[in-house]
Amino acid sequence: MFETAEVGATMSDAAFTKVRGRLRLKLVELQQQLRAADFPTIIILEGVQGAGVVDTLNLLNTWMDPRWIATTVFDDPSDEERERPLFWRYWRSLPPAGTIGLYLGAWYTDPIASHARGKMSRAAFDYCLLRIKGFEHTLAEEGALILKFWLHLSEKDQKQQIQSNRKDPLVGLRASDTSWTTPTNYAAYTNAASYALRNSMDGKTPWFIVEGSDDNSRRASVLTILAEHLEKHLAARRKLAKTKRKADKKRSNEKSLVQDKRRLEAPVRRVLDALDMTASMSDRAYAKAFHDQQLRLHELQKQARQRGLSTVVALEGWDAAGKGGAIRRLTFAMTARDYRIVPIAAPTDEERAHHYLWRFWRHLGRAGRMTIFDRSWYGRVLVERVENLIDEDAWMRGYAEINDFEQQLAEYGSVVVKMWLHISKKEQLRRFKDRSTVAHKKWKLTEDDWRNREKWDQYEDAINDMVSRTSTTAAPWHLIPANDKRFARVTVLKTVADSVEKALLTSRRKP
Amino acid sequence: MFETAEVGATMSDAAFTKVRGRLRLKLVELQQQLRAADFPTIIILEGVQGAGVVDTLNLLNTWMDPRWIATTVFDDPSDEERERPLFWRYWRSLPPAGTIGLYLGAWYTDPIASHARGKMSRAAFDYCLLRIKGFEHTLAEEGALILKFWLHLSEKDQKQQIQSNRKDPLVGLRASDTSWTTPTNYAAYTNAASYALRNSMDGKTPWFIVEGSDDNSRRASVLTILAEHLEKHLAARRKLAKTKRKADKKRSNEKSLVQDKRRLEAPVRRVLDALDMTASMSDRAYAKAFHDQQLRLHELQKQARQRGLSTVVALEGWDAAGKGGAIRRLTFAMTARDYRIVPIAAPTDEERAHHYLWRFWRHLGRAGRMTIFDRSWYGRVLVERVENLIDEDAWMRGYAEINDFEQQLAEYGSVVVKMWLHISKKEQLRRFKDRSTVAHKKWKLTEDDWRNREKWDQYEDAINDMVSRTSTTAAPWHLIPANDKRFARVTVLKTVADSVEKALLTSRRKP
Repeated sequence: MFETAEVGATMSDAAFTKVRGRLRLKLVELQQQLRAADFPTIIILEGVQGAGVVDTLNLLNTWMDPRWIATTVFDDPSDEERERPLFWRYWRSLPPAGTIGLYLGAWYTDPIASHARGKMSRAAFDYCLLRIKGFEHTLAEEGALILKFWLHLSEKDQKQQIQSNRKDPLVGLRASDTSWTTPTNYAAYTNAASYALRNSMDGKTPWFIVEGSDDNSRRASVLTILAEHLEKHLAARRKLAKTKRKADKKRSNEKSLVQDKRRLEAPVRRVLDALDMTASMSDRAYAKAFHDQQLRLHELQKQARQRGLSTVVALEGWDAAGKGGAIRRLTFAMTARDYRIVPIAAPTDEERAHHYLWRFWRHLGRAGRMTIFDRSWYGRVLVERVENLIDEDAWMRGYAEINDFEQQLAEYGSVVVKMWLHISKKEQLRRFKDRSTVAHKKWKLTEDDWRNREKWDQYEDAINDMVSRTSTTAAPWHLIPANDKRFARVTVLKTVADSVEKALLTSRRKP
Repeated sequence: MFETAEVGATMSDAAFTKVRGRLRLKLVELQQQLRAADFPTIIILEGVQGAGVVDTLNLLNTWMDPRWIATTVFDDPSDEERERPLFWRYWRSLPPAGTIGLYLGAWYTDPIASHARGKMSRAAFDYCLLRIKGFEHTLAEEGALILKFWLHLSEKDQKQQIQSNRKDPLVGLRASDTSWTTPTNYAAYTNAASYALRNSMDGKTPWFIVEGSDDNSRRASVLTILAEHLEKHLAARRKLAKTKRKADKKRSNEKSLVQDKRRLEAPVRRVLDALDMTASMSDRAYAKAFHDQQLRLHELQKQARQRGLSTVVALEGWDAAGKGGAIRRLTFAMTARDYRIVPIAAPTDEERAHHYLWRFWRHLGRAGRMTIFDRSWYGRVLVERVENLIDEDAWMRGYAEINDFEQQLAEYGSVVVKMWLHISKKEQLRRFKDRSTVAHKKWKLTEDDWRNREKWDQYEDAINDMVSRTSTTAAPWHLIPANDKRFARVTVLKTVADSVEKALLTSRRKP
């Protein structure tokens, strides 16, 4: 696949000077437009040694406003990085909307080099590429512009280039800056790269293969491609926003029709309807079970901490289902250093400027800790879906994105515990009334709660879809009848304890 | 100092029930008010084992809206934390404005326990307390409400408490949760604590010593103190904001008078006037010096990386002084993994919700890396001062805060290089005109630049004060004549190389 980049492309100084000014101006203008856009641009520069990766990086940094472009080179992972799934470090590096993230090698460097040096099997290499593809796809679907450049040299040109670089010690220093990669045998390296490139392209995450032997030609190519695609993407996103506004209007009119229609249909039996809502517990049984489960969880978490086994708990449920109370009981006998509660409220603007999963990746705890999300990434397919905050495409692909996220957690060895606290509509009303009359509970009840309640049926549909699409072996859903608070609290405790225990028994992993 | 907390304070259940409802309601209301406030609340809970620290933590978490309160317990530092000055982990943990940060032991735990166990000398203990005091003072001066609670038990009561806790295995588990501290000999521990408390109080960062033996009494005390001080602080900050608005108006009227007056005075000779602005370099001399310094810096940074020696560069200068160009030359021959450029633009809302130094702490690089700030924390005493964005008190204490920040960097072993690129007013005009005529440079010139230029004299005053107040042995200012770009670029290179070299020669530290 590199044949097109071994044709000896050149460009005279005169020709380059001619396009140079226009290109530079264009890029500066586009960067200004990007500032106001709702997506980030990710540029990946990778290639064979001597092909001008660092030169391209420097050129982009010279031409553009440094405030809105950031360069990332991945270094040896820190222990904070090693104590989370591999992609944590990539997520944390992502540029916010309106800016450009410039990567040397990015997530390609390690797998290509390792495979080329025979230190990574084809199966492991394939798996890496699959993950990378999923990652880039997730970002691109949310609007990110991803442009990947492979700067190429034939083996012969590379030899010449390296020799001529040696003559100038300074250029030599730069050309030999392969700190983001590991030089290796040319054929093995380019073979591995070719395989990686082939298997990590799709319509939205293309690779551009650019011949690197001639400075002018290489620079003009990269900059032209960048300018063209950035311009096109800006236009496409603007158009999309416009279409979306129109569609939203239209849909909100249609919606009322659909809702009316649904009410006429015979009631559907959904997964929550199968729960035994009479489940309850006497005070005495509760006292004993609570006590037993606390001791058990205390011991299990102690072991998990020693073993470096992390747990990620996502607690969801109806408004007033008792999530807060359940979490406080869950952490009652745990050591304060071992857990962290992450309440999910409105995102900050830094969070808003990233993919919606970014804020959850951000909060994952280190090895051996339990991270408890009070509401979670499932907001995407619950409130955001029901309230029409995003369009159907977005929440529909949300299931796959969430499965991918949880799979990464599970494959890293983390325990994933997802629970839905279910109360009946009648019980919710009782609790709302209680909240509205007891002075110190009033803050717990908001207009939103009443509004959500009106959409109970739509939420039931969303919950049904959520369970059917995201309950997996590695990360199953636990639906917990919660009309009786005692029963719900003990069940939450027991569910978490069971999950941790199972993982301790089956995993031997010590990260 | 703990006598007042060994008097056997008790409160009947009836009495507690009476205040409980009122207190709870009050706290919920205050938390709502806090949401809109411009400061964070930091609550530190510390005390002897068995005195109810965890119980108090749980109570606060139960009563308050979990979305705006976060608990922090410091765990063993990660390598990312160890590769930065000690307080990096504390800065990164701070709650944003409008929220409550609840700390178990916080920054007191380690020093008190270490000193009590004889593992930290009095001198080192004093030094820790000095740093802590400075840290809290810095936060409090910026408006943070800091409330520190020491929950106490006499030795006798502690023994009883621990025995009675043992009877109930669950309460025992919780009461024995001393994961944030290290239990030790009672007398040694309380002596060390007493010393720490005495030496870490001031008007704005008080300690409250509360007797912990009786649950009702302890809870009522802590909650009452919290409610009272939060209410008072909210009122004080509101009043302050009002006064400030008035003062701002008044001052802006006066300002014009002062400015007029200044113009009538004889010109003052300031530090920048002493620079030799004719300093320049021929093309040939530049080529050689550039080349030599690049090779030198390349080698030095390689060694610094191996030795784990971090460098923090702050580059300041007039608009159009050539900061961007100088930085690109500075990084020309460095390995991409070894440096990171941090351009300082407008803060994000997460940054705005913290102390102004938070965003700089946040970006400090790991061991062995160079972090290059394109504009820096000196904005506080330059633009923010000159543009009246903050009042005089704020920028006046900025010098001390900055010195303290840089001292922490230097003491950790980092190299701190601060440079001001100086151009003459005439040269600036020439460059502005150039920028306004060359199409691809137009983005570099903004309205702000012209506005800043009008305040040249005020900036010169601010620069003079900045140098006189913050040029220290560990972090000296380098004022660089930059009318000639070649001279300036080589001098920046040489200044950084000299500083790194000196540190490599004098330090043997490998963090």
